[in-house]
Amino acid sequence: MAGNSFGNLFKISTFGASHGNAIGGVIDGCPAGLELDMEAIQNELDRRKPGQSEIVTQRKEPDTVQFMSGIFEGKTTGTPIGFLIENANQKSKDYSHIKDVYRPSHADYTYDQKYGHRDYRGGGRSSARETACRVVAGAIAKQLLSSIKITAYTSSVGDIFLEKPYQELDFNAIESNVVRCPDADVADTMINRIKEIRKQGDTIGGTVTCVLQNVPVGLGEPVFDRLHAELGKAMLSINAVKGFEYGSGFCGAKMKGSEHNDQFNTDGTTKTNLSGGIQGGISNGMDIYFRVAFKPVATIMQKQDTIDKFGNIVEMQGKGRHDPCVVPRAVPIVEAMAALVLADYYLINKTTKL
Amino acid sequence: MAGNSFGNLFKISTFGASHGNAIGGVIDGCPAGLELDMEAIQNELDRRKPGQSEIVTQRKEPDTVQFMSGIFEGKTTGTPIGFLIENANQKSKDYSHIKDVYRPSHADYTYDQKYGHRDYRGGGRSSARETACRVVAGAIAKQLLSSIKITAYTSSVGDIFLEKPYQELDFNAIESNVVRCPDADVADTMINRIKEIRKQGDTIGGTVTCVLQNVPVGLGEPVFDRLHAELGKAMLSINAVKGFEYGSGFCGAKMKGSEHNDQFNTDGTTKTNLSGGIQGGISNGMDIYFRVAFKPVATIMQKQDTIDKFGNIVEMQGKGRHDPCVVPRAVPIVEAMAALVLADYYLINKTTKL
Amino acid sequence: MAGNSFGNLFKISTFGASHGNAIGGVIDGCPAGLELDMEAIQNELDRRKPGQSEIVTQRKEPDTVQFMSGIFEGKTTGTPIGFLIENANQKSKDYSHIKDVYRPSHADYTYDQKYGHRDYRGGGRSSARETACRVVAGAIAKQLLSSIKITAYTSSVGDIFLEKPYQELDFNAIESNVVRCPDADVADTMINRIKEIRKQGDTIGGTVTCVLQNVPVGLGEPVFDRLHAELGKAMLSINAVKGFEYGSGFCGAKMKGSEHNDQFNTDGTTKTNLSGGIQGGISNGMDIYFRVAFKPVATIMQKQDTIDKFGNIVEMQGKGRHDPCVVPRAVPIVEAMAALVLADYYLINKTTKL
Amino acid sequence: MAGNSFGNLFKISTFGASHGNAIGGVIDGCPAGLELDMEAIQNELDRRKPGQSEIVTQRKEPDTVQFMSGIFEGKTTGTPIGFLIENANQKSKDYSHIKDVYRPSHADYTYDQKYGHRDYRGGGRSSARETACRVVAGAIAKQLLSSIKITAYTSSVGDIFLEKPYQELDFNAIESNVVRCPDADVADTMINRIKEIRKQGDTIGGTVTCVLQNVPVGLGEPVFDRLHAELGKAMLSINAVKGFEYGSGFCGAKMKGSEHNDQFNTDGTTKTNLSGGIQGGISNGMDIYFRVAFKPVATIMQKQDTIDKFGNIVEMQGKGRHDPCVVPRAVPIVEAMAALVLADYYLINKTTKL
Repeated sequence: MAGNSFGNLFKISTFGASHGNAIGGVIDGCPAGLELDMEAIQNELDRRKPGQSEIVTQRKEPDTVQFMSGIFEGKTTGTPIGFLIENANQKSKDYSHIKDVYRPSHADYTYDQKYGHRDYRGGGRSSARETACRVVAGAIAKQLLSSIKITAYTSSVGDIFLEKPYQELDFNAIESNVVRCPDADVADTMINRIKEIRKQGDTIGGTVTCVLQNVPVGLGEPVFDRLHAELGKAMLSINAVKGFEYGSGFCGAKMKGSEHNDQFNTDGTTKTNLSGGIQGGISNGMDIYFRVAFKPVATIMQKQDTIDKFGNIVEMQGKGRHDPCVVPRAVPIVEAMAALVLADYYLINKTTKL
Repeated sequence: MAGNSFGNLFKISTFGASHGNAIGGVIDGCPAGLELDMEAIQNELDRRKPGQSEIVTQRKEPDTVQFMSGIFEGKTTGTPIGFLIENANQKSKDYSHIKDVYRPSHADYTYDQKYGHRDYRGGGRSSARETACRVVAGAIAKQLLSSIKITAYTSSVGDIFLEKPYQELDFNAIESNVVRCPDADVADTMINRIKEIRKQGDTIGGTVTCVLQNVPVGLGEPVFDRLHAELGKAMLSINAVKGFEYGSGFCGAKMKGSEHNDQFNTDGTTKTNLSGGIQGGISNGMDIYFRVAFKPVATIMQKQDTIDKFGNIVEMQGKGRHDPCVVPRAVPIVEAMAALVLADYYLINKTTKL
Repeated sequence: MAGNSFGNLFKISTFGASHGNAIGGVIDGCPAGLELDMEAIQNELDRRKPGQSEIVTQRKEPDTVQFMSGIFEGKTTGTPIGFLIENANQKSKDYSHIKDVYRPSHADYTYDQKYGHRDYRGGGRSSARETACRVVAGAIAKQLLSSIKITAYTSSVGDIFLEKPYQELDFNAIESNVVRCPDADVADTMINRIKEIRKQGDTIGGTVTCVLQNVPVGLGEPVFDRLHAELGKAMLSINAVKGFEYGSGFCGAKMKGSEHNDQFNTDGTTKTNLSGGIQGGISNGMDIYFRVAFKPVATIMQKQDTIDKFGNIVEMQGKGRHDPCVVPRAVPIVEAMAALVLADYYLINKTTKL
Repeated sequence: MAGNSFGNLFKISTFGASHGNAIGGVIDGCPAGLELDMEAIQNELDRRKPGQSEIVTQRKEPDTVQFMSGIFEGKTTGTPIGFLIENANQKSKDYSHIKDVYRPSHADYTYDQKYGHRDYRGGGRSSARETACRVVAGAIAKQLLSSIKITAYTSSVGDIFLEKPYQELDFNAIESNVVRCPDADVADTMINRIKEIRKQGDTIGGTVTCVLQNVPVGLGEPVFDRLHAELGKAMLSINAVKGFEYGSGFCGAKMKGSEHNDQFNTDGTTKTNLSGGIQGGISNGMDIYFRVAFKPVATIMQKQDTIDKFGNIVEMQGKGRHDPCVVPRAVPIVEAMAALVLADYYLINKTTKL
């Protein structure tokens, strides 16, 4: 209930905050016999880690995952996979001056109201640091689903949009630039925009698009656990996400049925794919694609008025090393959460019919 | 797992399809001692029922709910509430001619692929008829949350948008027109548009906006079960939904942190509310508002080519009584799902701190 | 959470009380394509129903199950199976005189304390009437597990024990007498004992033994969801159950390891089976057998002092038609709960390894 | 599903095996603001740890728990509590000679059949080592339930029984001897029996009795999640447990209703307590007491024939340091599991009525 587990049959339970000894988790329900590529797991973490480029936070965290259990002779055993990522860079600095301050558009106020007692160092559990655990679990889910191709990329930064549909993009180019946009020109514009924003001591939002290819027909559990409903929840559970749409999305709401319907080919594929690869909540074998909106990071390097817990107006200014735009580092997190949903629903679907 | 339950502590499990004797469900976890207004429950069903106006399907279903258990002397007993809605209008017509046909952008194909064996009459379980059960449960959840105000309305039909922010609207006007748009002029335009579309034998999409007021601070269970993540899943689980955004939503992804941050007043409220009433996944006491995108109904009264299960091209045309636009009847469904989420998280939050 | 659902992948949610229109439930997760023998389902209900013989309650309830959904053309569709059993025999008699009385060793007091508001008619939800729903679901689970043989029988009534091990019994003889004991002589003694007890206006306890044969190797989910742990919970959830043991059970606690260990045959079967078909919480392919203890029914036809809700001493005497011994009617309930556990764990086990 | 989580609102997910770097887990749902006594937690672990006395295994494991998160300034924060216990004593010895051998009455065979791939070192996940994690979580649950007194003790070893009812025992004497039996004389006999058994290279079973005092009225969630059903599952999930009974237990099955019914006092307490503190699955405020049967440890220091995975007969003999009787170390595990159930149901019960 308390909200730190995700998934049903392929399930992750995580713990840890930006400060404290370590973050980590337990992956339960990964089938036995899966040969794991450990380097691939660490690679995913490296895509998420701070300090990887000049447009992300310069905080240094090696983010090395250690596995405690559930893997033997290179393969999963079907027993729970415990893992740990040490918090190497938890500065022993003094946080006492901010412990009573509620930063605007952060979770300080709501955590204090909800729990009464809060680890105020670096945002505590509300810090996006916990998403590293999702990436570990997602990397294993990806290996379970080796025939499915999961690809996310930056599709907008502020008002700079990658207008091309995903079909026209070269997914191999995504990792060729630090903003993770597969179009080199747009990527350059985005990168410059982020640098400019950072110079202003400001931050900026953006969107990530994700495409799931070769998903088997039949994943999704209507009526409540429709595949896109669970994908939506997965994405909305990531820090800073404000919206989710799949297939035709919000544009579809402007369309007519005669325009929107996807006609079938004789093999069950469809001529168009406004459905976004899901019909009635169940994958139909076409590409699943969706878009996720991220708000700008709340910590800005500008002076802001805010309040403390006693209701006094205080002036504050973010310091330290923060992301001017969260989107480049969110790309692997979006992929990880998509992988977790697909792995779970892939396993559930094994029990659907005789 | 099989996807027909929703909620944790306040939980609904539903059954039934467009055909068969009845639909119904079990509501488990409603606290004991709640005095129920039965008329209010039936009223909600009446807002959803077919045949209620000239712009919705003309199918006639009284949709009368019967309660079987869990209520005694007008109050809930804390034991499960079983209920039933008879399928009065299941025509005994012959469906055998369409049993092998896969209608475009319907769930016929995916249900057949997933389950192998399918009730093809009227869409079976994939029919939106099941949402009547959600409305029953949601109506009870609303009564549990009597101090919270849950209001949904039609905010767009096709490209006709209600541009005013919700703060400028008179929510009392929502039920004064059949399209459930609180602005009379925009409502008229929408209604005419739907009539025109229906004449063309076509259908059209739209959006519903929902506002949750007086929500207590503290609802939401990070990191995975953030309040907006569960609201998002709830909405995306409704038939025909393609997108969900809350607070600043997709627009927020274009903004800068200095514009987006909500400054505090000294009482913990905020001067702006781009956060949409939720910070860090937890309600902050401000209004929660979100927008839900519905695609156009797939059944159109025009000839379309499609395939049958043997891979033959066949021509088909929708007949009968279908909604030209699903949005007016979706308004109470959106409210019901929001109420279910809030009731569940309200109960969970009772256990958060000592 | 509220405790009216059982199972994970094969899940039942039930509702209803001894009074009110009907009891019923939703079975979710039954795989699609299962051809159902409806008569076999009703047969199981008939084994449980009141009035079936002279040694059980003489209350008359036809207990006819009606299915509302989830079955089409004789086969399951993979969608939820809704069902209803009408309460035909809810006398409209006046219960107001007992509404404030707490019957000894009944749940009146605890329900009132827990829920505050209680349906006092006939025990309400605490009545064993709800177990009819378990029998319906269990009957479907049995059909899913057609290769597994599930057999329960009365192994003791009071101090009359069927001493023979199950291997020496003819299971076909179980239904040949009203007490459901497969040994005719012991059955006669038991039946006479129950008649004698009934004449005294008293009641008596007993035990049911259950044997599960041809269970596939591999069912059970350690470490918490060991197969016998879930079987134990399933049995202990039945009204009036006070104990559960499997394999060597409480006797095993007196033994030495050298006596208790089951030596292997070369094919993986074991020479003895003190383990009771489960090792490490996982079925090993040998017979699973367990024993369930039922206390005597609390309603006796003798005068007893008790209290009312105001703390006054009042005298009461059971009236009406009650079971002098619950065990004969409990036999099909034990089988049903065992079937539900096996069906669930059978499905879960499909996802255990690559 | 995969069985390594326990609880609903107060939930533990564990990982780890007898070998590998560490065992540990995540406790989710512990309310915020609980001041933790760290020494008390370690004390519970010390009661379970190997090497603590001459009648348990002489393996040395410090079993020191390290907390990673969820605790700040000595109090719980409401966020997940991650913890770790290092496997200090995982000998780097060569297990390859036994990797293909199935030890009698161990889980080697069933794990291999279920998962295909198994960590054969020291029993892997099927080792009782994982119960250390339960003790950590249980110790925190005990602190949450500080007004409830949870007491377990050894009530039999082999055929040596502590015959006195628990009311006549001095619970303070439990920790005064190594077998954890509160009667000094019986304890001596038990200890001598265990020493004798160990000399024979054999093992012996026993029972643990547990008493829960000052439990609030109202815990338990009928109909499936009756309090004793969950307690039963909790106990049966512990390694080597073969049976569970509460209140009158199996003896109650021999009794008459007129003997078994607990008459009320005017304050709602009862004159007798054959019900065992639970009626209708809900605690009634009287002492809850139950008994748990443990089989003899399967590893004996005697030669046994067994098979390898290829179906060959092989001779084996346990070596190393094993418990001759598991019961003394099981006492804190039984208490821990009881505490976990009570904590969970205590939280759930907060949402039962308005």
